[in-house]
This record gives sequence, structure tokens and C-alpha cells, in this order.
Amino acid sequence: MARTASLSGFPEWLPQERLVELHVLDTLRRVFELHGFSSIETRAVETVGQLLRKGEIDKEVYGLSRLQEDEEEARAAKGDHHALALHFDLTVPFARYVVENAGYLSFPFRRYQIQKVWRGERPQEGRAREFTQADIDVVGDGELPFRYDVEIALVIAEALSALPIPDFRLRINNRKLAEGFYRGIGLDDTAGVLRSIDKLEKIGAEKVAELLKSELGASDEQARLALSLATIRTEDTSFVDQVRALGVSHELLEEGLSELEQVIEAAVQRAPGKVLADLSIARGLDYYTGTVVETVLVGHDQLGSICSGGRYDALARKGNRTFPGVGLSIGVTRLVSRILSQELAAASRSVPTAVLVALNNDDSWTGAQDVAAQLRARGIATEVAAKAEKFGKQIKFADRRGIPFVWFTDDDGKHQVKDIRSGEQTDADPASWSPPAEDLNVRITTA
Amino acid sequence: MARTASLSGFPEWLPQERLVELHVLDTLRRVFELHGFSSIETRAVETVGQLLRKGEIDKEVYGLSRLQEDEEEARAAKGDHHALALHFDLTVPFARYVVENAGYLSFPFRRYQIQKVWRGERPQEGRAREFTQADIDVVGDGELPFRYDVEIALVIAEALSALPIPDFRLRINNRKLAEGFYRGIGLDDTAGVLRSIDKLEKIGAEKVAELLKSELGASDEQARLALSLATIRTEDTSFVDQVRALGVSHELLEEGLSELEQVIEAAVQRAPGKVLADLSIARGLDYYTGTVVETVLVGHDQLGSICSGGRYDALARKGNRTFPGVGLSIGVTRLVSRILSQELAAASRSVPTAVLVALNNDDSWTGAQDVAAQLRARGIATEVAAKAEKFGKQIKFADRRGIPFVWFTDDDGKHQVKDIRSGEQTDADPASWSPPAEDLNVRITTA
Repeated sequence: MARTASLSGFPEWLPQERLVELHVLDTLRRVFELHGFSSIETRAVETVGQLLRKGEIDKEVYGLSRLQEDEEEARAAKGDHHALALHFDLTVPFARYVVENAGYLSFPFRRYQIQKVWRGERPQEGRAREFTQADIDVVGDGELPFRYDVEIALVIAEALSALPIPDFRLRINNRKLAEGFYRGIGLDDTAGVLRSIDKLEKIGAEKVAELLKSELGASDEQARLALSLATIRTEDTSFVDQVRALGVSHELLEEGLSELEQVIEAAVQRAPGKVLADLSIARGLDYYTGTVVETVLVGHDQLGSICSGGRYDALARKGNRTFPGVGLSIGVTRLVSRILSQELAAASRSVPTAVLVALNNDDSWTGAQDVAAQLRARGIATEVAAKAEKFGKQIKFADRRGIPFVWFTDDDGKHQVKDIRSGEQTDADPASWSPPAEDLNVRITTA
Repeated sequence: MARTASLSGFPEWLPQERLVELHVLDTLRRVFELHGFSSIETRAVETVGQLLRKGEIDKEVYGLSRLQEDEEEARAAKGDHHALALHFDLTVPFARYVVENAGYLSFPFRRYQIQKVWRGERPQEGRAREFTQADIDVVGDGELPFRYDVEIALVIAEALSALPIPDFRLRINNRKLAEGFYRGIGLDDTAGVLRSIDKLEKIGAEKVAELLKSELGASDEQARLALSLATIRTEDTSFVDQVRALGVSHELLEEGLSELEQVIEAAVQRAPGKVLADLSIARGLDYYTGTVVETVLVGHDQLGSICSGGRYDALARKGNRTFPGVGLSIGVTRLVSRILSQELAAASRSVPTAVLVALNNDDSWTGAQDVAAQLRARGIATEVAAKAEKFGKQIKFADRRGIPFVWFTDDDGKHQVKDIRSGEQTDADPASWSPPAEDLNVRITTA
């Protein structure tokens, strides 16, 4: 793709590229609905107060103000918690939606949400300022069985498997496991340790060890053990023995080991080869309390995680009521950008149209519309030529737009259809003719 | 609906309401694609300079600024044409997209675009601050046959007819007709006359006549003629004779009469009863140059136009190149709000799920997943219970969520499925059982 976005960080697709994106979106929707997830959308804006709810925004947020507002209004809005801003993810808005509509929802509530989000960060490959996320979450009222952690991972594995993307791996860890382990070795600032461990891939083990010692006061042995844990990575449940071999014990560690074991056990069986236990996964500043997930495309490590998420003990609160949740978020734009830039998949044609009905003469437009209506009634996307140019020109028009078939009706009402790729022209009845199945709709083919 | 949006002007739907909206969006997409329109999306933001391109914004626009930016940055951004703002319609962004991508598109380019837009106006019934529009346009390179004006109106009539909404009327006029007429009677500030005529429904004929006289210097006779034209409304092409009876002649008037006649003639034949020639339609400040359209829901006049648009001689320009276009825009949120508030249609159930697979005991989860996978492979949306509660509780769970069928597998592997509405329970094979066709997917039924 030689094109670049006219506004850095705000990608736009050509029609044939959009067909690839639509295929991705349709596929995700189909899989999510087959698993009983309901669609919702939330408004694009939240109040600043809502976005600050968790005390800290580490994302660059776009605030909104009316262009016509005067300076006084503008000053008043600055720092106002009621001021509006664009959402930077779909989790915070979903939490608000659940609290606001709790009385109208039945729990556990399963929803998918596919929308754009905005972050004013410096754009780079795989990181846009406006991008689409596709989230699934299950949220309970008061409690949410752990089994949903297993299920969410399996649904995502199925959804990603249905996309025209390279092989992928869900790298799964568990916060209880990690926190229990750190407490077990005497490091109580577990959030601090997680933040350091999160930098492992970026800065390497040595520097992480230094951080642990300098910032968290860890001993050599504590740093060694924390790093040993983070290097454990298995395709089956053997991580359990590897953790035990480190000789650390803590109640929370046991709970986490058991949870992660359940996820990996089910995944090995139901999504073989797609899931890893990866004890380096920390998910930095995010407020997960159990299962945590990141996902890599095999051979595209530099792209970053294409699907992340995990379990929250309290996705939302309403008075004494807590709503625990577990969910994952697919970075649709990141995936589609990669599919397009590396030509991993392409649309079989660039327009939905399968048939162009040609015009014999200018008076034949009405008759041509009748033919088109008959074809459309049977699901065949059809255009009618706007001008009665020479047939050669009308065929060229179809060719230029990527329409495979041209329909002709002569003055005696005899119908013929031409496959302009092969040149083959045959008699046809508008009430019954159909294109070959592979030409009926646009298909997405992988390279 | 007792619920109100938590932020005025930013409607959000419950899952069962969202199903109605999805049905509307899916239906529009299907009709548009059957007519060969390609999907595109543009970024949600434009530069302020782009939005000001036509010299004046009569819409309230939301500007963007990073929350973290400092005061100096904020001051610099104020009035900066490179500053970002949310788009307020899909026409301005589409025009920019055409110019930027002209080298990659084949003309006439047919596109549909279904996206949210934002306007910071005072919210009221039928007018939100964030809402979804569904646009179709055909744009040519240099020229665009008039026939597309006819076609666009017919596609929209077909699309609206497929929605669960009350009967509607496309009210169509032609700017050439009106402008030619005004010039023919000696009123040369045609834009001024159009702006006054646009107020006809709001302030009445007498006040419009006053405006024409006081603001545009019209004589009594000129005002009378201009108003006479605006009262012409016919369901067929008889408007032509009624205009001629006013005894005005002008070249542009003739051109407009002929164009509008062609649209109405085709519509009478192909979309009988759906279209009116309505010579009061002016479309105020918008920069149309030929066909103009507004659409009312019969019996819902107060709602305002649910679909508007028309012909531009130059939708966009690039150097010497002009791109004429014709298009219409459906107010999806306005329609969906009305459908929901008046319960004109509803979803047959509130979740996509058709079947809940119950658990016999905690160990049966894996087997239950196998059953679910078999059903999903045949397109049946299926959930698996998360806990092996008593069957009565699991049935209640399905009932509460609106799931019609519950699947049971006993310890001997015998399968049964229960329709929890009728209570009927029958033997079933997960490899072949299907629900009745009407229960397979959520249906939208009209009241």
C-alpha cells in the first residue's frame, strides 16, 4: 500500500481494503453471537470524571469543547469533571453502562462491543490515534464463576482462528499466581514488581533485576526468584511443577496456580497449540485481579499484543454491589493494518456488484431496472448502466470497476449474460440465472 | 421506554433495543450492497479548516484537544485550521476522501457510509448530539449523468420500505426549477428566497411573504408567485402543468422542470405512493444545485426529515477537476429512537442465544462444550451453563435471559432438548437437531 493517511494516526481504507475490514468485523460478530454475546454500543464520549474514576489515566485522552464556546466557558470546562472526552477503551464505558443499566440487564451479562476508540499518542506502526476495538466481556452481579475465564479464552481463540491472520498465541498468566509468589518471597509491593516485570521484553532481565533491587529494595535472591518465575513458559500444565520447583508457598499462589491450570488444561484440549502459560505477562498498570492475557501473532512480535484483557474482581461498583467481570479486547485496526500492509488477505473484487445490466439504448433503462430488480430479489448485487454507450464501453466500465458479469437484453427481449473475464456469453433468464457461488458475493482470500 | 440517557443528547440502547438498531443497519447495508454501493468509513475527525471549507458552519462543532496539553498549546490551537474537530455529517468527510483518493477510485464511485456524527446542539426529541447517519452517494469525475438522481431516490425508497417504520414520503424538489422560477419573476437573490421559503412550515405563508418583501425587496406580485410555487405538491408529474399555469418562463426553470419530471415519472412507476413532487422543499443553507429531497414519516411530521440530500454540481474539487455528486442521508438514530419510543418494532428475544446447554454435574462441562460446538457449527447460537445447579435453576436462568431452548445430556449420554416456553421436551441429536426456523435467529417483529 503506497498510500499514507492524510492525518497521521487516523487510518482510512480504500473500498477494497474496507472489504477486508468488514470481513474481519463480520467474522468476529458471527463468532461472538454464536456464543451468545449480545451487541451493545456506548456513546463515544464520557465525562472526564468517569475516565478518571480509577484515579489515573495513563492514556492520552482527547477532550471535547464546542468550537463556538467563548473563553469563559472554555476556562470553566478546563479541569471540570463534567467536561466531555472521547473514550480511550471500551472497558471504562462498559463498566459505566453496567452500573447505569443494572436494573435492565440479566446477569451474568455477556456482551460484545465493536467500536472506535481514541488516544492522542504518538502514532507508529501498529498504534493509531483512532482505532477499532472488539471486546467481549462477561460480567456478574456479586459473583462470576471462574469458568467464564476459561470460556472467554476459548471464544477468543475460536474468533481469531476464523480470521485471515497468521498463527497466534494467547499468552496467559494469573495475577494471583504472580502476587502470591511475590508475597511468598517477601516482596509485598506486588504492583511495583508487576510494573518492573512488565518491562522484561523491553529492557531485559538484567535491568529488571536492577530495578527490583533499586526501586523495591529486593535482595539478589528475591530478584532472582521473581525473574525465574517470569521465564516460565509452557504449552501445557507443566508450568505448575516448574513453579513448585522454585520452592515458594503462599495461599494466593496456590489459588492462582489452580486457576491458570484450569484455563490451560481446557485450552490444550479445545484450542490445541493456540495457548501458552506465560508467567512473564503482567499487564502493567491495568487493574486485573486474576487471569491476564496478551496475544501475539507468530512472526509478528514487533506488532505488540493483538488481543489483551483479563479478570477484574470489580469491573464496576454500585453502592454495596460489585460486578466482577472477565473480558478480552481485540485490536481490530492493528490486525487489519497488518493484513493489508503485508497483503495477507485480499477481496476477490473491489465492489459488491456481481452484474452490470447494460443499456441497449436510452429507452431501455426501465427494462434494465426490471432485470436488475429480479436479480437483486435473489440476492445478486446488480447495477444498471447510466448511459447507453457502445457495448464495448459499457463492458470496459464493468471491467474497470471489477464487476465480473454484464447483462444484455436485445430489442426482442432476449437476455444474455457475459462473463467478462472469460468472454463467455450465454443465454440467461433474469428470473432464474445465478452467478457461480464463488462470484455471488465478495470473498476474502488469504495469500 | 422509561430510561433516559445519562448524558443528554447521547442515547444508548439496551441489548434488546440494540437488536432493533442492528436490524435497521443490517437491512440498509444489504439493500445498499445489492445496488452495488461500496462501504467506506472516514475518520471521525477532520481539521477545522476542512470543516470550514464551504465558508460557514451552521452546525455546532465539537473541537478536540488533548487533556494533557498545556495552556500555550491550547491557545495556539484556538482558531488554528489544523486543529481537529469531530465531523458533523458524512458529506464533508466524503468529499475530502474523494479528493485524497481520486487516483485509487473508479468513477462514477458509488459508496455507502454508516457512521456516527456529532453536533453540539441543544438536544430534543429527534435531535441528538451523537447520532448515526447512513449515507449513499454516487460521485462522478467531471460529469455525472442525471439518471443517478433518479436511481438514488429509488434505492432510498427501497431501503426505507425494508425497515420496520411507518409509511414515508420522499418530498422532492429541484433547485434549478426554483431558482429559474425566481429569476423568471425578477428575484435574483435566489439563495435569499430559498432561505425564506425554507421557513414556510415553521412561520407560515403570510410571514414568509413579509420576509420576501422586507428583506429581498419583492413586490406583492413577486411574493405571491414565489409562494404559489411553494404550495405546489403532486403525487405525479402534474406539477409541470401547475408550474406552467403560473406563466413564468426561464431556461433554468425548464431544465429543472424536466429533471424533476424524470425523477417523479420513474418513482410513480417503480416506487408508487412513496414520492411527492413538493415545490416547498428548499434545504436552507445547503449547497445543492439540482434535485433536493426531504423525507417524512407519515403521521410523524414533528419528527422532521428522516432522510435528506440532493445533487451537488461540485461535491469536491481538485485543481481543475470537479466531482459532481448526488446522495441521500438517512437519520438512523432518529428513526431508531422513534421505533423504540413508540414500540413500532421489537426483537423476538433479547439475546442471540437459542440454546442453553445445561450441566448435569461439574464434570460435564467439557461434554456440554462438545454439544455446543456441534450446534454452533450449524449456526445455532449456544451458551453452556457455568455451574451445575439444579435443573430448575438452570431453566430459570435461560428463561430470565430469554433463551428459548435448554439442552440436557444425562450420564448415559442421552440428549434431550426442552422448549421452555411450551415445556415440551424431546430426544435430540446434537449433530442434526435444529430449532424451528423462527427461533434460529433473533427476529424483529413489527407492532
